[in-house]
Amino acid sequence: MDFALEHGKEVLRRTPDTLRAMLSELSEDWISGDEGPDTWSPYQVVGHLTHIEECDWIDRTRVILEHGTDRVFDPVDREAGFTRFRGWTLGDLLDRFSSVRNSNLETLDELVEVHDLERRGVHPVFGEVTLGQLLATWVVHDLNHLDQIVKTMAKQYTQAVGPWRELLGIIDAP
Amino acid sequence: MDFALEHGKEVLRRTPDTLRAMLSELSEDWISGDEGPDTWSPYQVVGHLTHIEECDWIDRTRVILEHGTDRVFDPVDREAGFTRFRGWTLGDLLDRFSSVRNSNLETLDELVEVHDLERRGVHPVFGEVTLGQLLATWVVHDLNHLDQIVKTMAKQYTQAVGPWRELLGIIDAP
Repeated sequence: MDFALEHGKEVLRRTPDTLRAMLSELSEDWISGDEGPDTWSPYQVVGHLTHIEECDWIDRTRVILEHGTDRVFDPVDREAGFTRFRGWTLGDLLDRFSSVRNSNLETLDELVEVHDLERRGVHPVFGEVTLGQLLATWVVHDLNHLDQIVKTMAKQYTQAVGPWRELLGIIDAP
Repeated sequence: MDFALEHGKEVLRRTPDTLRAMLSELSEDWISGDEGPDTWSPYQVVGHLTHIEECDWIDRTRVILEHGTDRVFDPVDREAGFTRFRGWTLGDLLDRFSSVRNSNLETLDELVEVHDLERRGVHPVFGEVTLGQLLATWVVHDLNHLDQIVKTMAKQYTQAVGPWRELLGIIDAP
């Protein structure tokens, strides 16, 4: 499927409610359980998503629209959200993610038309990329982290499911 | 994490709203897109989940409680939901899944106490299993299919994300 602005926004609009539906009212074991050293809990994933929402997608969109290939994107610190939101409850994080996402979607409506999708910027590692690729990546980044959350939760029951493990691909997924 | 009845129910309670948040108002391209032959679209996954919800988890729970290891579970037809719900809209399916899930959780509350979790039944392939393993599998089965939905959606943008593909593990996940 090619990236289409309206189709991509459909998914971006759903993510705050999806996270809330998935994680609200879960007990701490689910929210803060991870998969071991150097892995993230669902709580940490929401912190990462919120931080990236604050500093990445719309910033890079503006860089492309205002500077094209004359300015390289700032690199992203994937774990900066953990410091930024230290001490926040999950509910506060979900509220913050939701409000920044809604604001970003309004900004996107104002800034970007379909004919802008071929405009180009420069990624610090990948080199030239298009605005369409950036916005498709925003969508898939959401889905990637929803996937991470459900995998992390599923792996808590690795032993508990007994012999059914072999039918539940998620448990042994990397 | 060991299976605990109340913790498991927390996740089971969330799934209908999670599916609704994830899929409502998405256009047909997202809902009916699959990954090629012998793969399922998000719409088909919801049909499968609803069918299994109608015929599997509580039935097998009753078999364990009423017959123990004297009766083997009926096998499950993973694609029977596709025929059962032919022509249903996604909205109708989500409503049906939600009402059967809620009803099943009420039945679970009535039928099963913590001390029942070690009771045993017989799976047609795996042999003896415990009620706790069956109920943990119910939870992970939900998560497995949420994972399948987000992966299938993400893969629609395999080409669209351009060079970012290498940072988005979900796109090349099996």
